[in-house]
Amino acid sequence: MTIDVARVRAQTPGCAAVVHFNNAGAALPPRPVLDAVLGHLRLEAEIGGYEAADRAAAALDDFYPAVAALLGAHPDEIAYAENATRAWDMAFHSVPFVAGDRILTTTSEYASNAIAYRRAEETLGVRVAVVPDGPDGLVSLDALAAELARGDVRLVSLNHVPTSNGLVNPAAEVGRLCRDAGVLFLLDACQSVGQRTVDVTEIGCDLLSSTGRKYLRGPRGTGFLYVRRSALPALVPPFLDLQSADWRPPGSYVLRDDARRFETWERFFAGQIGLAVAARYAADLGTDAIAERVTGLAADLRGRLAERPGVTVLDRGPEPSGIVTFTVDGLAADDVRDALRAKGVNVSVAVPSGHGYTAGAAPDVVRASVHYYNTEEEIGLLLDALPVT
Amino acid sequence: MTIDVARVRAQTPGCAAVVHFNNAGAALPPRPVLDAVLGHLRLEAEIGGYEAADRAAAALDDFYPAVAALLGAHPDEIAYAENATRAWDMAFHSVPFVAGDRILTTTSEYASNAIAYRRAEETLGVRVAVVPDGPDGLVSLDALAAELARGDVRLVSLNHVPTSNGLVNPAAEVGRLCRDAGVLFLLDACQSVGQRTVDVTEIGCDLLSSTGRKYLRGPRGTGFLYVRRSALPALVPPFLDLQSADWRPPGSYVLRDDARRFETWERFFAGQIGLAVAARYAADLGTDAIAERVTGLAADLRGRLAERPGVTVLDRGPEPSGIVTFTVDGLAADDVRDALRAKGVNVSVAVPSGHGYTAGAAPDVVRASVHYYNTEEEIGLLLDALPVT
Repeated sequence: MTIDVARVRAQTPGCAAVVHFNNAGAALPPRPVLDAVLGHLRLEAEIGGYEAADRAAAALDDFYPAVAALLGAHPDEIAYAENATRAWDMAFHSVPFVAGDRILTTTSEYASNAIAYRRAEETLGVRVAVVPDGPDGLVSLDALAAELARGDVRLVSLNHVPTSNGLVNPAAEVGRLCRDAGVLFLLDACQSVGQRTVDVTEIGCDLLSSTGRKYLRGPRGTGFLYVRRSALPALVPPFLDLQSADWRPPGSYVLRDDARRFETWERFFAGQIGLAVAARYAADLGTDAIAERVTGLAADLRGRLAERPGVTVLDRGPEPSGIVTFTVDGLAADDVRDALRAKGVNVSVAVPSGHGYTAGAAPDVVRASVHYYNTEEEIGLLLDALPVT
Repeated sequence: MTIDVARVRAQTPGCAAVVHFNNAGAALPPRPVLDAVLGHLRLEAEIGGYEAADRAAAALDDFYPAVAALLGAHPDEIAYAENATRAWDMAFHSVPFVAGDRILTTTSEYASNAIAYRRAEETLGVRVAVVPDGPDGLVSLDALAAELARGDVRLVSLNHVPTSNGLVNPAAEVGRLCRDAGVLFLLDACQSVGQRTVDVTEIGCDLLSSTGRKYLRGPRGTGFLYVRRSALPALVPPFLDLQSADWRPPGSYVLRDDARRFETWERFFAGQIGLAVAARYAADLGTDAIAERVTGLAADLRGRLAERPGVTVLDRGPEPSGIVTFTVDGLAADDVRDALRAKGVNVSVAVPSGHGYTAGAAPDVVRASVHYYNTEEEIGLLLDALPVT
């Protein structure tokens, strides 16, 4: 299966207006996603919010099997979340840490997660160990195995595709080590779902958080959490409400027995419908085909950038992701972004402190993140629009 | 100032389609709110999500002063939240409880909040005391004062307008007692903001959570939290990210010094813009004028329902809210709702366990919640459509 680029571009209103290389920020939604969201919002305004949810029950309910099918999970292992951060928060803070527990992570962990680890060190007495990288730039699996063998590890927590260095962490290999050690594994898949094949069975993670707005091309303000059935009983979410639990007056409650114990009842219902459509859209195109095209376009972009005098490509790892980062000699990353945007080319700027455990002395970098609907011609437009000193 | 009913109805697309008495569930948005949300979603699809947020920066930023003006607060005391439940969660779980602390609440507290209290009893060793009602059906201020005087109270936490019994809790009187006792006061204002004047200075609460979708007529999947400046320094939110804190590699963070320390960065941006428009819309109409009309219509509805044989109105309190609850002899509440909906009249069903500390033996009730855009004629239509046994 290959992607019919002309067709997906024709289904993407934004392709006519911009050259969009900010897919790791928020991708352009396809028309079916946009129509689903706008249509439900109009219905809410016309007949009432609760009444619209009743009428759209089938589309809302499809969220669970749609996301489950994309991930190779069961529908009862999927929870809706307001965004990837909240999905991750709910997962991380459900882990029953006790003082002395250790958390293992990697050098390229997202800074928001690093803040949560630091706070857990302060309040719960856990300790965080950052597993070093191997010579290929990926987390060293030998070092990870050695840390697991030292004991006291309650959680291995890392991201699949970091926000801005091209890496693809070896999630399945990490999963195998975690399973062998009997240790819980939380994967932040914010940048990988929709960009490549993410199969929870193959990866072996217990918890996986992600977002709608990035490579999945869903609405902003949507996200989800996968919770493996076998991991669920030991995990009590930090927040509970009438969705996650039943109240038994006068003073007890019973938790739901599926992943929706991580949800809250109220939500952006139109967004949930749009996210389901986005998940079906990606699955229909085929995640292997998506990955092949994204990887190919990113390699092309890296190669052409590297040929340009004064441009330094910064990505790491043997098989880099669709996220391409670079600097231009003598120009601040913000200025490069603004100059490109003035010519209709969208990129973003990544700050080094976005990676929690990378030295903070590096400069800001330009991030050009490609998607399958980008073209070789658009890469040419980016190169043409790139300012030089 | 009185409300120009014909004008607000003309600005409300749903008024042409349904008779909407489910405003305590989700109210019908006015055209300016709907247009703001749809417009931003279209812009995101056309030029990209981050790029749209940059272009709409002024509209997004207006959320803080718009909500602050509605509540009599400062813009830096306002945080955006994904919904009222998450706003309340973030507030409640930021309180630095220690074992032995007591939480005071009321008999009509929302069950989701009761679940959180119970969980805190189990995990933190706090104790919850439900202050009894006085003879007028409101929480007894004498009993509350006596509980405060007994000591060990870390938090007084209650809702302003319960979900389904017509009560309006005496928030300002509770606030006065809390200030005198130097105790933190969290008000769940989910059903009151947009229905009546809610002024945080008059009420004297330290924390106030609310939603967009109910009486404020904003989008589903939006909410906000008010945090009094003087209360902020002692409150560390349970979840932190790069919005709520700055990461200082390799291992420390600094919290924001305003209420946005309770936010997460990613959100439903179109919803935030719509919520700002909704707040301005309510303030422009005047919250006193809104309250007067809502109260008047609800009294009219109660009176006309009470005249009907077989109908029992269940609301409590001396000056009931816009939420009218009743039963029809011999008919389940679900059947009443469905019969009304089939005739184009929206009401909802309230379950007794929605109130955490009310005996669970009561039947489900029909909830007809009026808004200022409802009319006397619509009340007549509800009465005409009401099934009889």
